[in-house]
Amino acid sequence: MTLPTSWTQALPDPDRAFIERAVAHQATLTKPPGSLGRLEQLAIDLCGQQAREQPSVDRVHISIFAADHGVCEEGISAFPQAVTAQMIANFANGGAAISVLAKSLGASLEVVNLGTVGDTPADLPGVIDLQIAPSTVNMAKAPAMTPEQLASALQAGDQAAQRASDNGAELFIAGDMGIGNTTAAAALACALLEASPEELAGAGTGLTPEGVAHKASVVNKAISRHGADREPANILASLGGFEIAAITGAFLGAAQRRMPILVDGFIASVAALVAMRQQPSLINWLHFGHRSAERGHQRVLAAMQAKPLLDLGMRLGEASGAAVAVPLMRQACALHNQMASFADAGVSDGS
Amino acid sequence: MTLPTSWTQALPDPDRAFIERAVAHQATLTKPPGSLGRLEQLAIDLCGQQAREQPSVDRVHISIFAADHGVCEEGISAFPQAVTAQMIANFANGGAAISVLAKSLGASLEVVNLGTVGDTPADLPGVIDLQIAPSTVNMAKAPAMTPEQLASALQAGDQAAQRASDNGAELFIAGDMGIGNTTAAAALACALLEASPEELAGAGTGLTPEGVAHKASVVNKAISRHGADREPANILASLGGFEIAAITGAFLGAAQRRMPILVDGFIASVAALVAMRQQPSLINWLHFGHRSAERGHQRVLAAMQAKPLLDLGMRLGEASGAAVAVPLMRQACALHNQMASFADAGVSDGS
Repeated sequence: MTLPTSWTQALPDPDRAFIERAVAHQATLTKPPGSLGRLEQLAIDLCGQQAREQPSVDRVHISIFAADHGVCEEGISAFPQAVTAQMIANFANGGAAISVLAKSLGASLEVVNLGTVGDTPADLPGVIDLQIAPSTVNMAKAPAMTPEQLASALQAGDQAAQRASDNGAELFIAGDMGIGNTTAAAALACALLEASPEELAGAGTGLTPEGVAHKASVVNKAISRHGADREPANILASLGGFEIAAITGAFLGAAQRRMPILVDGFIASVAALVAMRQQPSLINWLHFGHRSAERGHQRVLAAMQAKPLLDLGMRLGEASGAAVAVPLMRQACALHNQMASFADAGVSDGS
Repeated sequence: MTLPTSWTQALPDPDRAFIERAVAHQATLTKPPGSLGRLEQLAIDLCGQQAREQPSVDRVHISIFAADHGVCEEGISAFPQAVTAQMIANFANGGAAISVLAKSLGASLEVVNLGTVGDTPADLPGVIDLQIAPSTVNMAKAPAMTPEQLASALQAGDQAAQRASDNGAELFIAGDMGIGNTTAAAALACALLEASPEELAGAGTGLTPEGVAHKASVVNKAISRHGADREPANILASLGGFEIAAITGAFLGAAQRRMPILVDGFIASVAALVAMRQQPSLINWLHFGHRSAERGHQRVLAAMQAKPLLDLGMRLGEASGAAVAVPLMRQACALHNQMASFADAGVSDGS
């Protein structure tokens, strides 16, 4: 099995010189210092990541990774497993939330099918078929995937980052689709954070409180079976999903190629957390789109000291919460690039 | 003196039938119920306000009201008073934050000059000259404006709402520019909420803690002089500014003409609070763009039970915090209007 080079090779750093120039530039603009709040730091961070004087996130690449989960046989989702494949068709046909958002942003959207139990029509536009298996194995009973399957999923993510880079993407976004994947993500987060399933298992697509309690007990079985191994690759193979592993690989691959990354909600944040356990400096490339209403997200964000841009009670996944935050990044860039300086505008700077 | 009819005439209600249809429509879309969080209610509210099946905020009208404040002679601002007039020119020349944001949104931007101490060049593009006086009177010593001046300012706001309506605006935004206006807004909020100046006076454009304490003492003088009169028009004339009164009039005028309103930060929120004391049903037409870092904003928002869309630590005014939130409203509309239904997409709805 071959892991992507970004799994072990040191990630690049953002460019310090461009960060310093951006800080100095912000101080010249016609506004009280700091009065644009987080939009100022956002522009400064993008300058460093893009190594540019004028940051831009006009060209956005969104990869949605879809896969099914063996743990669904434990009855942990409010929706039937067939929905994963049905939603792949919905993405391709433009009817899903992320389809609508990507179109409104002028972003390029691709769907990577890593394996579904249900059939999908052949040759759906914008869908890349990389099926690893119809689903993972039920993690409550055995490791979710083999080391070879893990490597395939990580490589699928890395290839998405390569496509984005080849297309000149200025911002990389990864999304998830997979009935059952909040259960897998909760198990991963429990193993990584040594937290209890009760703290991290949430309602997902809409479980009752009894359903959530059952889900926590399934997560508990899975993490007990997994044991004390804290190696990120082993945790991911044992408790993950193909799409979660692909997002992990995609984030590392995007950082390796010097693309800023906008992280979506619970699933994408857990993938980022796994990736950061392997490569802590990944954090230098991450922006966080939104705080999800899914129970476990808050704890996962706190572990990364992440402060998302939005808090709108969203919990849909499929990169929707990241997509909604893109205009904030664009406006931060526009303000940084286009505002007049005190000197040019003939405005007194108060000093 | 003649006040606009919206000051006393009952405001219209949003359309209940369109709200009910929008709620039913949301339930058919390919997502777990509620998973788009506040974006769902946002679209539903806009359907009721616009009395439409497909809401839209593509056409946005932004009016910036600028004016100077007599209370500046008490030394309550970090920036010199000349900046008000200088910034009017900066708005017109496209260099201010709101100029950049309006351009990025494709919004129409107008600036209404209600009176500045400094000179502005004649015939600046996009600037409407309605100067009432070079500035208000120092409210620490006497009422800030006469009843006739108040009426002129309210009418100026109402006329802006009329222009927006004539241009087919689907969303109305008002912004402020006026060195010293956080002092006036803090005084208004103290009088309306019976709160202490220490609670509501903040750093504005960048006062030191000593400066903030001095500002609170000036506010205290003004509200002591004003006394116990709780009539909104009297409070506004005694403690307000021309631009704050104009925003008050603009909000009432926009609601009267059935336009949804997106409220900016501290200054605009205080104007909304004054307007709601006169016409409580104004709340049915208000959306709140952001939570400002200015100290008093939280208390003013709480008094209106307002939950802003964004919390990014902004504190610039000039409608910038509202403008940054516009894309969220547009995305809420796109999702409501363009997502596929479970039936059309052939996706199981889990029932």
